[in-house]
Amino acid sequence: MAVAEIDSLEQLLDKAGSEPLDKRELSEVKRILYGSPVETLQMSSEATKKADELEFQLSGYKFTATPEITRAPRIVRIGLVQNKIVIPTTAPVNEQMAALHKRLQDITEVAALCGVNVICYQEACSMPFAFCTREKIPWMEFAESAEDGPTIRICQEMAKKYNMVIVVPILERDSIHNDIIANTAVVIAPSGKVVGKSRKNHIPRVGDFNESTYYMEGNTGHKVFQTQYGRIAVNICYGRHHPLNWLAYGLNGAEIVFNPSATVGALSEPMWSIEARNAAIANNYFVGAINRVGTEEFPNEFTSGDGKPAHKDFGHFYGSSYIAGPNGSRTPGLSRTRDGLLVTEVDLNLNRQIKDKWCFQMTARYDMYAKELAEAIKPDFKPQIVHE
Amino acid sequence: MAVAEIDSLEQLLDKAGSEPLDKRELSEVKRILYGSPVETLQMSSEATKKADELEFQLSGYKFTATPEITRAPRIVRIGLVQNKIVIPTTAPVNEQMAALHKRLQDITEVAALCGVNVICYQEACSMPFAFCTREKIPWMEFAESAEDGPTIRICQEMAKKYNMVIVVPILERDSIHNDIIANTAVVIAPSGKVVGKSRKNHIPRVGDFNESTYYMEGNTGHKVFQTQYGRIAVNICYGRHHPLNWLAYGLNGAEIVFNPSATVGALSEPMWSIEARNAAIANNYFVGAINRVGTEEFPNEFTSGDGKPAHKDFGHFYGSSYIAGPNGSRTPGLSRTRDGLLVTEVDLNLNRQIKDKWCFQMTARYDMYAKELAEAIKPDFKPQIVHE
Repeated sequence: MAVAEIDSLEQLLDKAGSEPLDKRELSEVKRILYGSPVETLQMSSEATKKADELEFQLSGYKFTATPEITRAPRIVRIGLVQNKIVIPTTAPVNEQMAALHKRLQDITEVAALCGVNVICYQEACSMPFAFCTREKIPWMEFAESAEDGPTIRICQEMAKKYNMVIVVPILERDSIHNDIIANTAVVIAPSGKVVGKSRKNHIPRVGDFNESTYYMEGNTGHKVFQTQYGRIAVNICYGRHHPLNWLAYGLNGAEIVFNPSATVGALSEPMWSIEARNAAIANNYFVGAINRVGTEEFPNEFTSGDGKPAHKDFGHFYGSSYIAGPNGSRTPGLSRTRDGLLVTEVDLNLNRQIKDKWCFQMTARYDMYAKELAEAIKPDFKPQIVHE
Repeated sequence: MAVAEIDSLEQLLDKAGSEPLDKRELSEVKRILYGSPVETLQMSSEATKKADELEFQLSGYKFTATPEITRAPRIVRIGLVQNKIVIPTTAPVNEQMAALHKRLQDITEVAALCGVNVICYQEACSMPFAFCTREKIPWMEFAESAEDGPTIRICQEMAKKYNMVIVVPILERDSIHNDIIANTAVVIAPSGKVVGKSRKNHIPRVGDFNESTYYMEGNTGHKVFQTQYGRIAVNICYGRHHPLNWLAYGLNGAEIVFNPSATVGALSEPMWSIEARNAAIANNYFVGAINRVGTEEFPNEFTSGDGKPAHKDFGHFYGSSYIAGPNGSRTPGLSRTRDGLLVTEVDLNLNRQIKDKWCFQMTARYDMYAKELAEAIKPDFKPQIVHE
């Protein structure tokens, strides 16, 4: 006989406030919240020991796909990195950057021990998230060339050394184009070659996210990078609130989309588990959502446009980086407070299998929406409203 | 001193398997999962008593908005109804339909006691979800006129009696257009007038959802119905997987979008809490997601396209109806197994307040996406791929 259905997730959560959940209850909670369970991936004792020494969390999971006759599995290990800044924001910028480089080098060395093929760091990974301050000095000194800046050069070395694709989000200074600043992710091949760059398409104007003071909406479109470990795209931070942005990477054939972010608890935390995962479901690709951790303290006070007094801290950045799959499943998140490396093995064949199953693309009616969107942007657009 | 941040949602869930969560832990779990808490709305003892007698769950919640100087609050009470079929699918179709009408009348009477202004029933609310069978006989006899079919006429009476807007999803037979069948929601004003109809825009071909055997993709566009209780739209069932569909209702000015659905646990449950809520966040409107409950047994066996033996049951429909707000918050869900009425009071002013806060519309770059989408549908479309 079938086991009785549980009444609701909410009832179980309320129960958890007064007594422990039994095994089946807990597994139902997790099924509803995380989808069909991803397997745990055991990391070597060497990697685990090293992560412990370096004081960061190391977690491993695995998505599997159905074996096919005509296609071999396409197994890729993805690494997501989240970390605090290393030394105070009052230190000279070159020292701050060097300390962050060292941290990324250490974590990437462990990622290599874990067999990671593609790694992505957090947004603006070589600096504190200083855009809350609206100050240009000294923060603009973190900006660097996306072709051969100091962070890029270090990542090129690591890419070659570990035979990895590295996705490195930086603050870019584009000296070819009159010194404009951009929020940019650079994709580096295992050969060490810079494959290309992808700029942040949507720039926030909310809370302490004063980034529009520094850089404009990206002009690199929705590039997808064909690497030996699959087709990769990068949707930076606030772009995750824009379903069209996710869609456009999908239309260009992305199989893994990274969402390197910097976002804080009071503002966005209940949306964090929704948006990137919805994108993975709707577009049938893997999404790696990355958020930094910790509270960052700045030398001078600033206000947050919320009627509250000036202050010097920006945070709490709540980490919680995770991978969402095309099938509605996701990994648990990394810690909300600790540095971490999330290793996830995926079979990229799963994407097309889920497309074939759900038919979202076949049923998408893009022609209808292309027309409706073209209408909606006209100055004389008349919404389709029916009156009572 | 600030209280220490919790490590992660997952750690707390694991803890719940061996010991109770303390008050703060439980409130953190709920904050991360549901956003800033919606208030509980107390229902009258008369309504509660009646719901008990009629054996359905009655829950009430409330979203508030910041008071404004230049706009009065726009308070609306929304009712979502989920229910099982009432008598077996082997009964004559007119008796099955009459039993469902009676059930909806009973629940709507309680909704009126709760001050509900706008109510929405589940998808194809006057029939079992017989599309799994691919049989036309006798199920096509449930199809009715969207202008004056039996279900519509009963809802017109209720709309007048209770001064309610009623959104009633039916199986439509369109005799003006050569007897085609459609999956349609009809919006009825408190005057009893049929304001208009909105057809299901995206039709599934997955699992037991063989609806494409019966009806085609809707041709009513993305109508928004301006009622005295706000601007309402209806995104039926499988349309919730399509972010462009949600967007188009938003572009036409929707303030509340209903998603009447019929979906089963094994297929979609982990996606249920993601998609409608993501739409509410991305488009800054309220979404009412409704799913039927129970397992429906049909007279003749059918297969599910999954290699498994023929069977007669379709389900488990897992209910879990909920309201998601424009601010990332949501109500708890109704039961996974019981009939229910979810009453949610909202201030529609919250939508624009959140638009002003987050600026998703201002930063949306629709012009860029209109162009990209127009490109993507061309036969000679060349995806933007950068090679290693």
